[in-house]
Amino acid sequence: MDIIIEIATTMVAQMQKPTLAFLLGGMMLAALGSKLEVPDPVYKFIVILLLLKVGLGAGISIREADFVSLMVPAIGAAVIGITIVLLGSQTLARWRGVSPMDGMATAGLFGAVSASTLAAGMAMLDSEGIFYEGFIGALYPFMDIAALVTAIVLARMSATRKTVSATGGGAATITVGGGGSANFNSDLVKGILVDTLRSPAISALLLGIMIGLFARPESVYESFYEPLFRGLLSILMLIMGMEAWSRLSELRKVAHAYVLYGITAPIIHGLLGFGVGLAAHHLTGFSAGGVVLLSIMAASSSDISGPPTMRGALPDANPSAYVGSSTGLGTPVAILSIPLFIALADQFIGF
Amino acid sequence: MDIIIEIATTMVAQMQKPTLAFLLGGMMLAALGSKLEVPDPVYKFIVILLLLKVGLGAGISIREADFVSLMVPAIGAAVIGITIVLLGSQTLARWRGVSPMDGMATAGLFGAVSASTLAAGMAMLDSEGIFYEGFIGALYPFMDIAALVTAIVLARMSATRKTVSATGGGAATITVGGGGSANFNSDLVKGILVDTLRSPAISALLLGIMIGLFARPESVYESFYEPLFRGLLSILMLIMGMEAWSRLSELRKVAHAYVLYGITAPIIHGLLGFGVGLAAHHLTGFSAGGVVLLSIMAASSSDISGPPTMRGALPDANPSAYVGSSTGLGTPVAILSIPLFIALADQFIGF
Amino acid sequence: MDIIIEIATTMVAQMQKPTLAFLLGGMMLAALGSKLEVPDPVYKFIVILLLLKVGLGAGISIREADFVSLMVPAIGAAVIGITIVLLGSQTLARWRGVSPMDGMATAGLFGAVSASTLAAGMAMLDSEGIFYEGFIGALYPFMDIAALVTAIVLARMSATRKTVSATGGGAATITVGGGGSANFNSDLVKGILVDTLRSPAISALLLGIMIGLFARPESVYESFYEPLFRGLLSILMLIMGMEAWSRLSELRKVAHAYVLYGITAPIIHGLLGFGVGLAAHHLTGFSAGGVVLLSIMAASSSDISGPPTMRGALPDANPSAYVGSSTGLGTPVAILSIPLFIALADQFIGF
Repeated sequence: MDIIIEIATTMVAQMQKPTLAFLLGGMMLAALGSKLEVPDPVYKFIVILLLLKVGLGAGISIREADFVSLMVPAIGAAVIGITIVLLGSQTLARWRGVSPMDGMATAGLFGAVSASTLAAGMAMLDSEGIFYEGFIGALYPFMDIAALVTAIVLARMSATRKTVSATGGGAATITVGGGGSANFNSDLVKGILVDTLRSPAISALLLGIMIGLFARPESVYESFYEPLFRGLLSILMLIMGMEAWSRLSELRKVAHAYVLYGITAPIIHGLLGFGVGLAAHHLTGFSAGGVVLLSIMAASSSDISGPPTMRGALPDANPSAYVGSSTGLGTPVAILSIPLFIALADQFIGF
Repeated sequence: MDIIIEIATTMVAQMQKPTLAFLLGGMMLAALGSKLEVPDPVYKFIVILLLLKVGLGAGISIREADFVSLMVPAIGAAVIGITIVLLGSQTLARWRGVSPMDGMATAGLFGAVSASTLAAGMAMLDSEGIFYEGFIGALYPFMDIAALVTAIVLARMSATRKTVSATGGGAATITVGGGGSANFNSDLVKGILVDTLRSPAISALLLGIMIGLFARPESVYESFYEPLFRGLLSILMLIMGMEAWSRLSELRKVAHAYVLYGITAPIIHGLLGFGVGLAAHHLTGFSAGGVVLLSIMAASSSDISGPPTMRGALPDANPSAYVGSSTGLGTPVAILSIPLFIALADQFIGF
Repeated sequence: MDIIIEIATTMVAQMQKPTLAFLLGGMMLAALGSKLEVPDPVYKFIVILLLLKVGLGAGISIREADFVSLMVPAIGAAVIGITIVLLGSQTLARWRGVSPMDGMATAGLFGAVSASTLAAGMAMLDSEGIFYEGFIGALYPFMDIAALVTAIVLARMSATRKTVSATGGGAATITVGGGGSANFNSDLVKGILVDTLRSPAISALLLGIMIGLFARPESVYESFYEPLFRGLLSILMLIMGMEAWSRLSELRKVAHAYVLYGITAPIIHGLLGFGVGLAAHHLTGFSAGGVVLLSIMAASSSDISGPPTMRGALPDANPSAYVGSSTGLGTPVAILSIPLFIALADQFIGF
């Protein structure tokens, strides 16, 4: 009981953090019909700066990290990404009134990672002076790519299977058997991999990691990217809040299952991330702050590069369903649950 | 005589301040036909940052302000806004060659507040190390909304009256009498209030105030909004200068009265603001810096949210008249007269 | 031999500088088909900030500079600009398969100056703590305008001559003789001068110089322009790298001579600049850092205001030729050769 009270107290205190205040403020503005708009080029620029910052920080840290401490959470991140999608395929995608294609697309976005949510988590840990491994940003692509590839492959495979069973026994087209199917899959996986790596978010992040790893960007990182980071994050949270509110209305067009999923999934995924992080903590001494950030990555759903990737890869899926539930509900719920993961880590590991 | 010389000396010294230099530089560039353009999204972003900064600063200060010290200048600000519009309705709007509708729209903009002009004043006081109450930004909506509502209501009422008298005695449509008129007015006022509160400028400012009041944004305020503020203001002044020059040409299309009004009104309104500020100084100890900023608010004319509000509320008014005189003359004259109000406050109150 | 090894060692060390790393990173992203894009308004804003910064710095320094120390490198800069164009008119513009018009337009851009390349050079000297004269930015327009005017006048004169000789002996239209030709030229030169001075890059730079010279912008310069400068330069280098790669493909459409010219000219021009700088060093004590920056200006080719000026002045010239060779090859080669000029100055003058 004491634990629950302590967790609740910590959470309330966190709500006054500017990161969350700007998110809630943005939602309130949109709800009240404000005509305030942050121009789109500014939004894109803030996201690029933020991804470069996260990448540079990760790249600089990887130089000094030992391989095992890095790979254990990286594998954990990929496992989380895949597990989230499989969970979604057994729950949301089987719900009555939810088409399997839409359900898989949604689960894929919830498995993928939001740079803004991760950045919000980093800013909140920074402001508390809580340590986390600098290489955390490098875990992002492991979880993001694993989730997107799994979701798209499963959705395409189920669509193919349906076509096949619809065509009946005379399915001459796929008589090539297992080998053909494997080819189909490996080409598909390769295509999704290339697309994901070329997406703006992942390529900005990887560029940052490469420059952090091979050049010496410390001075520009400390004099520019770091100090600008928290300030621009406040603007980003404002945009996310306004965007979330305006996307919420799209959920009216789709099944209620998306609302339930959008509210509960971030918490469940975050707890899954917390569990995997806790295991890494015991295996390799992964820090309490790192466990928090892994939980936040798991709780977050992709808002920048995920939706266009989905639209390209699964053109038949309904964007109102997957964008409405991820941007409209998943993202704000994930950001607002950051204090919960901080409180849990404080209880179970201690800062 | 000595006073005038001292005031003049102070003003000349102030002209070398970067804020004014960038404004004059922008005007010069436009006059010389430069093709330099600051992209519109950048302009919008700078204005949002600036309004959030002014709002956050006000919100943080209100927490510690006592109610009376805050309400006296707030009521003063509203009174100034209304008085400016009434003044305009008796002078500009009755001028030969000026349509009452255009005159009222112009007076409304001159009564409303320019965030950039206010910000320029704050930057100039900051650079002199002159104290002013942190809550000053919170006075902005009082003056702005009072002026816009008064101007639009008066313009609409006079348009209705004209229609009525044109229709002659058989004016069955308005036989509802005083009650109907009151309904008409209260609905109209409510509509204008909601529109103004939803306008980008006022809602960004109020968001800043709310976050400053209820969250703890001090760290992001000091590490991001404050330091960026003066730098971005230089860019904003450059834009204002270029914009002012290019809007000036629109005044050729309208009566000369607008030129006279655009040049003299900011000074007269500023002196009115100075008088009200002086009264507040004697009543509640309102600071000399605060009196300067109240004068600047009164001298300034709306350049961001005012014109679209006018276009929406008074579609028959001629934008060349009200935008030309406010953005083309009112704003640069108000900004260039900031040193005058600083010099006056130094003489009559002393820093 | 030792010198060459030392130069090579210095160059390799410089390649890890973030400035070059971001340029190479941008090229790599574009080569790998990344969909990352920095929005155009952001690019334009970064360039304006950078030009204002360079101008302000120059203006502040000119106040204290003595006339001779300033004029010797300024005349040197103009001489370099003209020499580069004359060199191009004797080589590239006479090449088989290259139209004289296209060749002159290209030579004009290579003679003009790139603010980004100059800024990259300044940032690299700053990060090494190498001194250079603050007024260097003021040399920019001397070289830039000299090169553009020379190239456009020569191209137009050769086009006129061709028309005349095509019309044969009955060329009544130009019988006005030398006087008429001189009028033609002085009007042309005046037109080009006005156009160039009104171009966004030159007018932002001159505005910065004027404000630096006549106002007191030191505080905003040090608190805003200076600190933002190196950070935004990293983003600018990223954009330049992506842009260079995407422009390279345009060179496929034109003669191979442009590829050869685009790769070798920056080095040759830079060495020419180094020679002139060395002379100024012995004449007036021009600093080693100043010599490096003069070389970099000479090596650079215009990427912001040059191409639109060319399009306006020489509408018959082929943009694929001049933009492809300058932005696609000239700019990255010039930026990547900055370490060479630093190494040369270290050897021949010493820091």
